Amino acid sequence: MSEGREQRVLDALEQNRRRTPKFTAPRIDMSHGAGGKATSKLIEGLLLPAFDNPALAPLSDAALLSFGDAQFAMSTDSYVVRPLVFPGGSIGELAVNGTVNDLAVSGATPISLSAALIVEEGLETGALVHEIEAMSTAARNAGVSIATGDTKVVERGKADGLYITTTGIGVADPELNLSSASVRPGDKILCSGTLGDHGAAILIARGDLELEAEVLSDTRVLTPLVRVLKETAGSGLRFMRDPTRGGVGTVLNELARDSGYGVALWEGNIPIRDVVHGACEILGIDPLYVANEGKLLAVVAPEGADVALEAVRSTDGGEEASIIGEIREEPAGMVLMHTRFGGTRMIDMLVGDPLPRIC
Amino acid sequence: MSEGREQRVLDALEQNRRRTPKFTAPRIDMSHGAGGKATSKLIEGLLLPAFDNPALAPLSDAALLSFGDAQFAMSTDSYVVRPLVFPGGSIGELAVNGTVNDLAVSGATPISLSAALIVEEGLETGALVHEIEAMSTAARNAGVSIATGDTKVVERGKADGLYITTTGIGVADPELNLSSASVRPGDKILCSGTLGDHGAAILIARGDLELEAEVLSDTRVLTPLVRVLKETAGSGLRFMRDPTRGGVGTVLNELARDSGYGVALWEGNIPIRDVVHGACEILGIDPLYVANEGKLLAVVAPEGADVALEAVRSTDGGEEASIIGEIREEPAGMVLMHTRFGGTRMIDMLVGDPLPRIC
Repeated sequence: MSEGREQRVLDALEQNRRRTPKFTAPRIDMSHGAGGKATSKLIEGLLLPAFDNPALAPLSDAALLSFGDAQFAMSTDSYVVRPLVFPGGSIGELAVNGTVNDLAVSGATPISLSAALIVEEGLETGALVHEIEAMSTAARNAGVSIATGDTKVVERGKADGLYITTTGIGVADPELNLSSASVRPGDKILCSGTLGDHGAAILIARGDLELEAEVLSDTRVLTPLVRVLKETAGSGLRFMRDPTRGGVGTVLNELARDSGYGVALWEGNIPIRDVVHGACEILGIDPLYVANEGKLLAVVAPEGADVALEAVRSTDGGEEASIIGEIREEPAGMVLMHTRFGGTRMIDMLVGDPLPRIC
Repeated sequence: MSEGREQRVLDALEQNRRRTPKFTAPRIDMSHGAGGKATSKLIEGLLLPAFDNPALAPLSDAALLSFGDAQFAMSTDSYVVRPLVFPGGSIGELAVNGTVNDLAVSGATPISLSAALIVEEGLETGALVHEIEAMSTAARNAGVSIATGDTKVVERGKADGLYITTTGIGVADPELNLSSASVRPGDKILCSGTLGDHGAAILIARGDLELEAEVLSDTRVLTPLVRVLKETAGSGLRFMRDPTRGGVGTVLNELARDSGYGVALWEGNIPIRDVVHGACEILGIDPLYVANEGKLLAVVAPEGADVALEAVRSTDGGEEASIIGEIREEPAGMVLMHTRFGGTRMIDMLVGDPLPRIC
């Protein structure tokens, strides 16, 4: 690391330390679960100080832990999506793919999951069987075992049918150094496909929008895409995330903040389906903040970016991949969109919760 | 293993296979979460066939998994206890101790936990802070880190304040062979203290019972008790469980069923507080089915049982330990109580759910 670069990262870290958000809300509201600014405040202002430890501190999707000589990754997520079944998937499939993907984007190879179910009294057995089978199929597709589990039942009105918490364990890859501190100006931002499909599918399934077009959730396991990226980009692979809750807008804001560099996006290169654009326009939200459940965002060194892009495009689930932006020196800590019309606009952190219970 | 013994275990396993319960209920009700017969049917009739794999098959509290050369244990539990705070503890403390204990009784040394929170919109921040701090303190006491987490918020009326799912990872002990297949006639059943305290504390805290006496939950980390048992009983330590949901009655019925041997209990040796007896009498339930959250049940070879008992009694949380029964050839697959009055009665699996949302 050059001396100027090192100073820059130290400055960014120091600035983050100084501006650790205080959590001042008297009650928890829906925005605290949305993955945006309010969630950050809850996590960084309240949870992180209490649970302070080196594994949790980087706040990535998976924690890296040592286990004898080996390193492993651990990740957990609760799934509370409503409705339980939606076009393109269901909560059971989401619960497996989501946790497998959090491990995969940390560079780890997922091996085992646990599954904890909180069932509302009165749930039809058929609905439960559907989700158990969806989990089983998704686990088989992802090459992981569901090794242990738990089932609790709560009274009617004390849940919403079914909540699932999955926790995954994977073998970490010691060759990789994926981190916001690894990115450099000039690095390219690769997106594996169209954005906002999952969130739009859920909204349409809820009947919140009067749209005739059907959008399918993009829920899928990302391990094949991660594998080709590792193979083609090698040590030029700097950073990976799956932009779920909070969307690409949130992931890139965190990257800009934590790296101390700027992120430039090219609107014309960002793949978004017309129907997703339409749904977002009706709601007055930017599709960049809408959740994805089968998309990969990767930062790769410029020299290998084209080869990596071609490899991703040749892989199932990566056909519509695109280079959507790059890392720049300026504007430091911010995300700047270059619009189709030649203008620019800032992409800030998500405020509030326009799309609750999306995952 | 002697040939007769081997045949006996094989017969028991074969019998279990033949009588795998079918899950025929059209809807999920509270009994499916109670840890008794209905929960067994749900798990063995529905979940186990779908998730079929070698780690899950033994259905112990923790799965044993291989990770390169090492073996590790993984365990998960959702906590839905109501009220969130009760005499002697709270949901956050329970969520850490419970999962740490599931690892400890599998013989593993707990190292890391994940924590996933499902928060109901409107929960007071102070209540959340109380649980975060309880988790942090419990984790420090247990010597584990909370390495990763997740927070979701659901709308008012879609949860009951706060649900917590913890998943734990521990290093397995290759020297131990803890299993229902390891027990032999003559082995003693050691119980680390009074039974039913946690369940009674919750019931009294809910105001379901008009009792003046206060009972404190026994929630505590069991690793110190497990350590002294390992040290004193060595390879004579055959089986350990923490009798939580479903109580000692359920654990011992499962042990009898899976080992093919009988379990004899001596009522006069079973430590139960008068107030817990009183609460159970009002409810018409047997304290043997009431949940404990800081008690250890161990089966130890007869030659080392007295030394192990003394060691447990000299350890914090084991002062009231007792040998409550033993393994016998007959009645095969059943639990028989020898009462104070010289009679006997069968202790069957728990049916229904007299005590919902206890953990």
